[in-house]
Amino acid sequence: MGLFSKDIKTMDDLFVHQLQDVYYAEKRIVGALPEMISKATSPLLKAAFESHLAETRSQVRRLEQVFQMHGSSPKTVTCPAIDGIIEEANEVAGEVADKTVLDAALIAAAQAVEHYEISRYGSLIAWAKALGRNDCAQILHQTLDEEKAADEKLTSVAESGVNRQAA
Amino acid sequence: MGLFSKDIKTMDDLFVHQLQDVYYAEKRIVGALPEMISKATSPLLKAAFESHLAETRSQVRRLEQVFQMHGSSPKTVTCPAIDGIIEEANEVAGEVADKTVLDAALIAAAQAVEHYEISRYGSLIAWAKALGRNDCAQILHQTLDEEKAADEKLTSVAESGVNRQAA
Repeated sequence: MGLFSKDIKTMDDLFVHQLQDVYYAEKRIVGALPEMISKATSPLLKAAFESHLAETRSQVRRLEQVFQMHGSSPKTVTCPAIDGIIEEANEVAGEVADKTVLDAALIAAAQAVEHYEISRYGSLIAWAKALGRNDCAQILHQTLDEEKAADEKLTSVAESGVNRQAA
Repeated sequence: MGLFSKDIKTMDDLFVHQLQDVYYAEKRIVGALPEMISKATSPLLKAAFESHLAETRSQVRRLEQVFQMHGSSPKTVTCPAIDGIIEEANEVAGEVADKTVLDAALIAAAQAVEHYEISRYGSLIAWAKALGRNDCAQILHQTLDEEKAADEKLTSVAESGVNRQAA
């Protein structure tokens, strides 16, 4: 989509634009998680990131399925939001000296990513329903549920001792 | 904090760094909301943004209170995440031709901001508790509750007709 070209004329255009945005975001997350896995010290946290990497790969395929159901080809559009969230995660991680403090910072970074996705899938589902595409909404809801569960899992890893040890 | 200078040595350093990050984010949101108010068409949406602007100004003051309780001076640190989220909101808004579709896009953009803040305040509260600062956690919790309520309010504005009209 070209900047300031008013390419989004209908709700359907907005839906596709957001699909492309989230498709870009999920692919960036697949690229970022291996580094987070290698930086994590807590075995629980490493395992949570590993299982979320597998989950994220299947979320990418689910988006491709929604593109197909909609009759569009899977395409990405640069998403400055996820770029900024990942840039900030790398910056903070680069400044942390202590391993347990780094684990706490990695959890916070991953939760910022999860919340970004929760908001994006929430909008996509609402728009799919408004467009009468409950079939697309249902597929997207599977991912939304996984993102919420991933966020809760990270909270429980933090509460299981990472924050306490770090403090 | 300098990049790669390993300035974050303790959980307390991480807490202060995140406070500075959120302080920057809240100030950017105070700066961005007036434009969102002027772009919104739905009177319900305009009113929701206006009330959130007043709320955000009080959230800035609440952060200053937490800095003070902690014995630090209020300082910002650039937050690439909120910069990216706001940049993306402006880009998308610049591409939307139709007024009701623009309202749907503005709601989604604002919900991405809310979710970013929900994740950041969630981490800050967990860290304050781990550091034995329940007093700081309590103040931060007031803001977290407001952010969650603002997010729900936006969902109800979308469901009240904005998405349907736009579709």
